Amino acid sequence: MLAQRLIERKRDGGRIEPGEWRALTLAYATGHVPDYQMAALLMAAFIRGLDARETSALTEAMLATGSTLDLTHVSAARVDKHSTGGVGDKVSLVLAPLVACLGVAVPMMSGRGLGHTGGTLDKLESIPGFRTDLSLAAARAQVERLGCALIGQTSEIAPADRKMYALRDATATVESVPLIASSIMSKKLAEGLTGLVLDVKRGSGAFLPELQRGVELAETMIALGADHGCAVVALVTAMDRPLGRACGNALEVEEAIAALKGEGPPDLMNVTYALGAEMLVLGAAAPSRDAARRAMEVAISSGRAAEKFQQIIEAQGGNPAVVDDPAALPQALACELYAAPRRGLVARVEPRAVGRGVVALGGGRTRIDDPVDPTVGFVITAKPGDWVEAGEPLATIFARDHAGVVEGRAALRQAIVIADEADPPLPLISHRVTTAGVELYDP
Amino acid sequence: MLAQRLIERKRDGGRIEPGEWRALTLAYATGHVPDYQMAALLMAAFIRGLDARETSALTEAMLATGSTLDLTHVSAARVDKHSTGGVGDKVSLVLAPLVACLGVAVPMMSGRGLGHTGGTLDKLESIPGFRTDLSLAAARAQVERLGCALIGQTSEIAPADRKMYALRDATATVESVPLIASSIMSKKLAEGLTGLVLDVKRGSGAFLPELQRGVELAETMIALGADHGCAVVALVTAMDRPLGRACGNALEVEEAIAALKGEGPPDLMNVTYALGAEMLVLGAAAPSRDAARRAMEVAISSGRAAEKFQQIIEAQGGNPAVVDDPAALPQALACELYAAPRRGLVARVEPRAVGRGVVALGGGRTRIDDPVDPTVGFVITAKPGDWVEAGEPLATIFARDHAGVVEGRAALRQAIVIADEADPPLPLISHRVTTAGVELYDP
Repeated sequence: MLAQRLIERKRDGGRIEPGEWRALTLAYATGHVPDYQMAALLMAAFIRGLDARETSALTEAMLATGSTLDLTHVSAARVDKHSTGGVGDKVSLVLAPLVACLGVAVPMMSGRGLGHTGGTLDKLESIPGFRTDLSLAAARAQVERLGCALIGQTSEIAPADRKMYALRDATATVESVPLIASSIMSKKLAEGLTGLVLDVKRGSGAFLPELQRGVELAETMIALGADHGCAVVALVTAMDRPLGRACGNALEVEEAIAALKGEGPPDLMNVTYALGAEMLVLGAAAPSRDAARRAMEVAISSGRAAEKFQQIIEAQGGNPAVVDDPAALPQALACELYAAPRRGLVARVEPRAVGRGVVALGGGRTRIDDPVDPTVGFVITAKPGDWVEAGEPLATIFARDHAGVVEGRAALRQAIVIADEADPPLPLISHRVTTAGVELYDP
Repeated sequence: MLAQRLIERKRDGGRIEPGEWRALTLAYATGHVPDYQMAALLMAAFIRGLDARETSALTEAMLATGSTLDLTHVSAARVDKHSTGGVGDKVSLVLAPLVACLGVAVPMMSGRGLGHTGGTLDKLESIPGFRTDLSLAAARAQVERLGCALIGQTSEIAPADRKMYALRDATATVESVPLIASSIMSKKLAEGLTGLVLDVKRGSGAFLPELQRGVELAETMIALGADHGCAVVALVTAMDRPLGRACGNALEVEEAIAALKGEGPPDLMNVTYALGAEMLVLGAAAPSRDAARRAMEVAISSGRAAEKFQQIIEAQGGNPAVVDDPAALPQALACELYAAPRRGLVARVEPRAVGRGVVALGGGRTRIDDPVDPTVGFVITAKPGDWVEAGEPLATIFARDHAGVVEGRAALRQAIVIADEADPPLPLISHRVTTAGVELYDP
């Protein structure tokens, strides 16, 4: 009867109290409230909204259904980065070792790809032998030893959130700011963070394309963090085109390794440095963002960052040779250059079309249990605003076979739009959101 | 994927097309759309509403998941009555034989009691041997022979509605006018009706207490009927006090039999005649409501109405002796008079408190599979507006044992409010709703 009364209240725009969220979430996690009641509640919450107190209570309630990664003895500063998801977004792979080798503990918990966006776990698992399914105890020990572990959400962490996330996916209740914020924060708080840097994607390829919704999410997460002793800072970055050049699991690992050696594409390097600077300042490992950036440049040029990644790969069962020799990564069987069909201006490189192309090649998922081919994808060198000649190579297609190449070509024809003129793309990093509010980004 | 897209559209206030309602409803009935997706859709529909076209499409879609009672060869006029539910509402038991013996076919499908309201099926089953679980074929044959059958919603009829109704009950999505209207009409249309008279209850004991919501329901059902060749007329009647005197299954059958012999309490007779007049006019068995009323009075005084009920009881396996001898109905083991605790005006007889009292005595259900004791209940002779002396009998409690009597006493103390002054009760029949609109009721 409890569930019906709470559903009814939320349906009519009322508020659910913290104790009620706790009881309901626990009952759902333990199977005492069925999916259909939770689905009705989630839809009512989606439409009617949750206020700050409810969002905080739901976050805490989901967190409380599982275990946490107790890292208080490891380091005073434990900082993670979370991205709202995009295409070509391999920043985590670069950032985690880079920040960890500068003295901030990075207990990073990532997800798998779903729909048009990729997932860090899938990318990591393209490294032969790499395991992301560490227990919390193993992750804790690794953070203690190396300053970083790259893991997935284990069944120990916020089980109510896992269950609820799958349900939201099936019931069209995903794109709700309070539900997204509480889902992310319940997992992040389980990492025992002192700081979190949020990369809020904006533009056609983003989950919440509009700036306003992204900022709302950032503000909600900043408030949630404040309630739980975790400082949150957010940057709004462009996802109207893929980030970097590589899109596809092993291809992105290769690009991330290049970035750790200072050879990444400029947009990827800039986003990585911007987010890293926030992490290092939050973690008190640098006095300013400028100083942090200089420290990161040194960590990269000295080889320390790449070496840290190598140590992490080795610790998690992967083949560390991939850092020195990208050919040790699984390789696609069929490759083909994709050339500009006409001369003109690259007006758009549509992330959703690129992402769907990767899925069509077998490199992503339409269902959570689909297998993923690590080798396939695209390396797209053309960027919006580039002037190109007919026949000039814009991208390389990596596929399993000739049929895949044909599919990849069709996807790129959709994704890469060449025109006589074009609106300028979004600024790479446009806004910064902190407890003080939203400001235009000033590096 | 279909379900998610439709949920999403309804969530955002959009419209679901007739073909989509058909596909969705069929998929739900056959288990291809799970409860949790339907629950999310129902909540979105509850909050965002359904327009007339959607309500009609949903009704038809639910109807199409099952079989119908084909009565086209039985009679030109097939008319039923539906009540939105109340306490002491035994009108169906009187009306069905009364109207049937005047030449209109009455294929009446009723429900069970749930919560504070009783159900016609439970009442009928208090007649020893009476079976309401006729197949559609048996019901058809009986309507052909006797002009009337009193049955429950079989699994053959609108299975999607059955499933959806149970889900709505568990997900706080019951009190939605379009969902209620489509649920009722999908079943009523399965009876193959040419006319339907709706008894919309109003007041504290009604399902939709406010006049406005009741009228909205009536108007929605009138429009649905018009879409499907079924003329619908509605009367708004009072449910701020129980109807008649008896509340409890066998007790209500006894009162209904008395009414069929012209000895029912005035409020019950008036509501029965008013609804019956509409049925007979809709069924073209009387030229006017006045003429219909006179015909009904004759049917009762001549004994034909009671005889028709006896034939129906016999046809459905019940003991027909109950019509001549009410003592053939199951009898309560413990009885006690309930006396006025003080002198004054009967200010209120609260139907919800009375109904909950019947449930507490064992005569109703809190869950759909609870067993029901036919013998227990109340006969409440006091009516709002009566002046009573201290110690004057107001009611009789019928219980299983002494503990039941004590429970019954407590319920009546809550239900029957005696005061020095009181607002007048609602008019017994206040409004009439037709395709022409709402008018004040003029008998």
